[in-house]
Amino acid sequence: MDKHLYAVVPAGGSGSRLWPVSRAARPKFLLPLPGPGTLIQNTIARLENVCVPEHISIVTGHAHVGAIQEQLPDMGREQLIVEPTARGSGPAIGLATAITAARDPDAVVASFAADHIITDIPGFETAVHAAAALAREGYLVTIGIEPSYPETGYGYTQSGTRIGSYGSLNAFHVDRFKEKPDHTTAKAYVDSGDYLWNASMFVWQARTLLEEMHRFLPSLAYAVERIAAAWDTPLRQVVLAEIWPDVEDISIDEGILERSERVAVVPASFGWSDVGDWHGLGSVAANGSDSTVVLHAEQLITRDVERSVIMGNSRMIALIGLEDIVVVDTADALLVCHRSRAQEVKQLVAELKERGVTSLV
Amino acid sequence: MDKHLYAVVPAGGSGSRLWPVSRAARPKFLLPLPGPGTLIQNTIARLENVCVPEHISIVTGHAHVGAIQEQLPDMGREQLIVEPTARGSGPAIGLATAITAARDPDAVVASFAADHIITDIPGFETAVHAAAALAREGYLVTIGIEPSYPETGYGYTQSGTRIGSYGSLNAFHVDRFKEKPDHTTAKAYVDSGDYLWNASMFVWQARTLLEEMHRFLPSLAYAVERIAAAWDTPLRQVVLAEIWPDVEDISIDEGILERSERVAVVPASFGWSDVGDWHGLGSVAANGSDSTVVLHAEQLITRDVERSVIMGNSRMIALIGLEDIVVVDTADALLVCHRSRAQEVKQLVAELKERGVTSLV
Repeated sequence: MDKHLYAVVPAGGSGSRLWPVSRAARPKFLLPLPGPGTLIQNTIARLENVCVPEHISIVTGHAHVGAIQEQLPDMGREQLIVEPTARGSGPAIGLATAITAARDPDAVVASFAADHIITDIPGFETAVHAAAALAREGYLVTIGIEPSYPETGYGYTQSGTRIGSYGSLNAFHVDRFKEKPDHTTAKAYVDSGDYLWNASMFVWQARTLLEEMHRFLPSLAYAVERIAAAWDTPLRQVVLAEIWPDVEDISIDEGILERSERVAVVPASFGWSDVGDWHGLGSVAANGSDSTVVLHAEQLITRDVERSVIMGNSRMIALIGLEDIVVVDTADALLVCHRSRAQEVKQLVAELKERGVTSLV
Repeated sequence: MDKHLYAVVPAGGSGSRLWPVSRAARPKFLLPLPGPGTLIQNTIARLENVCVPEHISIVTGHAHVGAIQEQLPDMGREQLIVEPTARGSGPAIGLATAITAARDPDAVVASFAADHIITDIPGFETAVHAAAALAREGYLVTIGIEPSYPETGYGYTQSGTRIGSYGSLNAFHVDRFKEKPDHTTAKAYVDSGDYLWNASMFVWQARTLLEEMHRFLPSLAYAVERIAAAWDTPLRQVVLAEIWPDVEDISIDEGILERSERVAVVPASFGWSDVGDWHGLGSVAANGSDSTVVLHAEQLITRDVERSVIMGNSRMIALIGLEDIVVVDTADALLVCHRSRAQEVKQLVAELKERGVTSLV
């Protein structure tokens, strides 16, 4: 086990595309999707095989500390980095990296979202170790997923010149980050073979990130380093309360990775999914197929239900003659949605918020 | 008002195609579909304009007496004819006709299902009066609905030679009763102009029906006349208990109308619907169109929902990108069904019964 390897897991966002199961108070990472185990439990279990368990930290908000400790009773309180307010992935990952650097100047930090699914665990571990080796050469490394179809819901990276081999994997410079494309563009990306899904998996030496942060986001670099210096002292809360409110809200991608020339990518494929919506979750649960999937249902009766995703509750659910339909039933809300429109659940939740139906979002 | 005209309303059957709203204990005729007013309330209100209100009787089972009295507080207990057990429309209508004949030998009896919808009330009244005039000539009269499309869920009658005019309506002999046809046959029926929907609306002199019953179902005729003779005496329950258990279970169509040569039809159209299933109910509620209809919903949010039928409960219902879908949400059961498959709800309820899920049917 690499004793300088550390893992950071930003755990935020409600995952509103998985409404009505996900809610602000019951975000996606706390849910057993597709189960068993919640997404954050499975994320932490994966990481315990790539680094010393005590080297894992979770960055989250006050609201979720209790639930996380309940789901992960073996994690020490010191492994939770609690942000006073959410400020995006830049400050979250930046602070965790700065705290780690203060504790271990030779640290290599790997960051993984709390709410993604990975089915090929050995493949994942191989990629992390390759990325860590590359990171030691001074790169900001992303692990890029080889696209299996032209997904329009993800960002992409465009690979440039090859750097070399790390274990069984190749590494490339990243020429460009691309926002979520339209379908035609996504198809061109996939056909070219030069583009990878940006899966928000990053590996770097703590010092490399801080150097690049000083270059592109100097005030954030200064802020997180000041907080990190106070973190393991009695002054933590005082300094945090003083500095955090002025921290810029920015993503790590936009703030640093899209600007730095030291970004490299390790292409890999290990059954990754961001479980972005009910369609995606259904595909994962059906092993990549579009077969009908029953994620949960205590009482269910169906006749001719094709390519659909069903998540029930205790109520009887009767379905007849459906194709490509998502049915999600909870105690206080029901969603019926065409599978091709699963991304729009997010807008619908936004609309509920606007209407003031806060008890359901 | 014709003082010899009487109305009989058989109120039985659960209407299982409207599950999960309709249940054995909460049958279709007791439901406010599409509302306001329940189907039986609206049926009785219609009939109070065509005959003396005290001349209306309802034939039903013990289980529904309480609910009927609650919904129709102005009806006297003597207007309810309570069958010890359900035996089909032959015994139900036969008994009501025999009781009426015993009270008024010149009675003309008109029978209408408790759970149908009629939107053109004056048109309905015109047809009843025409049918009553025809009935006085010794015919067993059905009021036939001019088909507006090739429905495969109804039986049809084939019209024969014309008998004459009654008010503004024509009357014809009925050559033949036809079971529910397939689509091609139904289309041929509609195109020919000679076929009418059999809507289970019958008008006859009490004595005509009893004569034909003696001819085709003599043991039933004998049974209902013996019960009728005891009906308005202290012996009612004794005689009923003695005779009813052996009464044959048969429909009035099969037992008499399909055999008699005295059957005539008055074609009419007055916005009739048997509210047979959610598709049909949706069409009625949308004034015959296939537009999306929300029958009830306390909390509903939709995006692009076309040609669908929605019946909600108190829960939030969120619908995205649906076409031709029925969504019916109740406290303990949810139905999501393609509109073209609405008839199959009946089989699904049968399947639930087979599975022993009796609390939900």
